[in-house]
Amino acid sequence: MRVELINPFLTATCDVFRMMLGSEIHRGTPGLKQSHTPEFEVSGLIGFSGSYHGMVVVSLSRNTALNITESMLGQRPEELDDEVVDTVGELTNMIAGGAKAQLEQYQLSIGLPTVICGKHHAISFPSSSVPISLPFDTDLGPICVDIGLAEAKAGTEATAGG
Amino acid sequence: MRVELINPFLTATCDVFRMMLGSEIHRGTPGLKQSHTPEFEVSGLIGFSGSYHGMVVVSLSRNTALNITESMLGQRPEELDDEVVDTVGELTNMIAGGAKAQLEQYQLSIGLPTVICGKHHAISFPSSSVPISLPFDTDLGPICVDIGLAEAKAGTEATAGG
Repeated sequence: MRVELINPFLTATCDVFRMMLGSEIHRGTPGLKQSHTPEFEVSGLIGFSGSYHGMVVVSLSRNTALNITESMLGQRPEELDDEVVDTVGELTNMIAGGAKAQLEQYQLSIGLPTVICGKHHAISFPSSSVPISLPFDTDLGPICVDIGLAEAKAGTEATAGG
Repeated sequence: MRVELINPFLTATCDVFRMMLGSEIHRGTPGLKQSHTPEFEVSGLIGFSGSYHGMVVVSLSRNTALNITESMLGQRPEELDDEVVDTVGELTNMIAGGAKAQLEQYQLSIGLPTVICGKHHAISFPSSSVPISLPFDTDLGPICVDIGLAEAKAGTEATAGG
């Protein structure tokens, strides 16, 4: 995947943590996402379409999700309840929206975030895309942003039975 | 959610099973999707954007996923391997693409499918959307299509930190 697609997600993630959550954040080494490797327990997903299409996944541990919810709402939930799900969705939306704003030339649109909770869930990107994984360490806990975008070829969607 | 958004997914799912997979399919009673209720073990997700945005999830049991892969590829995999993941992604893409073609007036775009595998994963839609769940019985096993779409308001994505 082209590096000019990746950097906006790095910047957007750092901006959201520093400016919205008041948390320090340090980026780790980006790498190829290994398919079928379960990440953390909670994942926020958001779809992209436009000149590139695909999915971005923000993964975090249960504890990081609770810390972020506490930081945003001022109160710590005891479990992965609706407030935590909405907070993880909003975090995913902020990161995706921040990156999208820096990628104007690709005319990207983002959808609504969806949140997956489960101890052993594995997220697989289509084999046509080579997803990149961006790990971060933050004051609120570790998170990982996986980006799986592929160039949209005109007409590929039309093979889908339309 | 408006019924004219739902019917194309019903039609597209039936078309894909009858025409692509040569399987009989019977629709069950559509209902509101209960948040946090885990569905089957395997889920294909695809994002929508346009006048409406959100996510569509095709859930199926491990056995249904293996049956569909066998039907499409002529050989039954022994586990949830890359072939099964790609087949479930393609099934999701065909259903979403078929529905999109019937919803031209909303100028929808779809992204690339992502596949989640895990025995106890729960998929939560944002609380702003009221997802509808469409259950089906097919010759290849039961499947469920969950549709969570919300009207895209101009500028809502811009709140995301751009």
